[in-house]
Amino acid sequence: MKRTDRRSDCPTNFALQAFGDSWSLLVVRDLMFKGKRSFVEFAASDEHIATNILTDRLFTLRRSGIIRRDGTGRATRYSLTAKGVDLLPLMIEMIVWAARHDGRSAAPGAFVRRATRARAELLAEMRARLVLEHAAR
Amino acid sequence: MKRTDRRSDCPTNFALQAFGDSWSLLVVRDLMFKGKRSFVEFAASDEHIATNILTDRLFTLRRSGIIRRDGTGRATRYSLTAKGVDLLPLMIEMIVWAARHDGRSAAPGAFVRRATRARAELLAEMRARLVLEHAAR
Repeated sequence: MKRTDRRSDCPTNFALQAFGDSWSLLVVRDLMFKGKRSFVEFAASDEHIATNILTDRLFTLRRSGIIRRDGTGRATRYSLTAKGVDLLPLMIEMIVWAARHDGRSAAPGAFVRRATRARAELLAEMRARLVLEHAAR
Repeated sequence: MKRTDRRSDCPTNFALQAFGDSWSLLVVRDLMFKGKRSFVEFAASDEHIATNILTDRLFTLRRSGIIRRDGTGRATRYSLTAKGVDLLPLMIEMIVWAARHDGRSAAPGAFVRRATRARAELLAEMRARLVLEHAAR
């Protein structure tokens, strides 16, 4: 993000400007929890993101250094950078909050229980897997 | 949120639809960390939220059950509900992430260190204060 684009130096604002908006975090979710790595896979998610919005959010996430693009054409794959993997605790808190306040949440109960009762262990395990799969650097 | 408004039952999506967008989370930040409680105070934040957007986001946050409105006219005050106070861990992870990845972050170093090294204690302390101040219910 260019310095002049900043709305403020507040950490919350920095994070929110980096993610862009809710569509961006759904892409992070797809990369982090659903093993999706391609444009076609992101576009096929339940939320039916419009392809022009998806293109824009992938650009924003790359510009913010949260994801990386490798390959070209049909072989194009997206990965989380180290900065993207660092969003893991935030994403997990989002899932825990939703599980607590959404009667219809699709969050697996076992995952949510682990996230609250064995948080450090879950984070370490998931982080190790993500770093391996995404070669996060 | 009405059932038919849901993009999916994914917990991440539920959370993102409840917050609305980045402006909503800046209002939560103002309530949670900056002691702001009124429209005029939210509007005066560094990010210069437009008043029509602020009106809309306050409505969305109330509809999602994250904030509560008390009083009328100039005496109108907003508070976090219990559901809003439950966003504390997520907000703290956002601050920690920003502090790690933003060279210009305004996040106080002592706070960030506590959030990583004495997380449970910090959460309990802040939660108790918020519940008291906002009479969260």
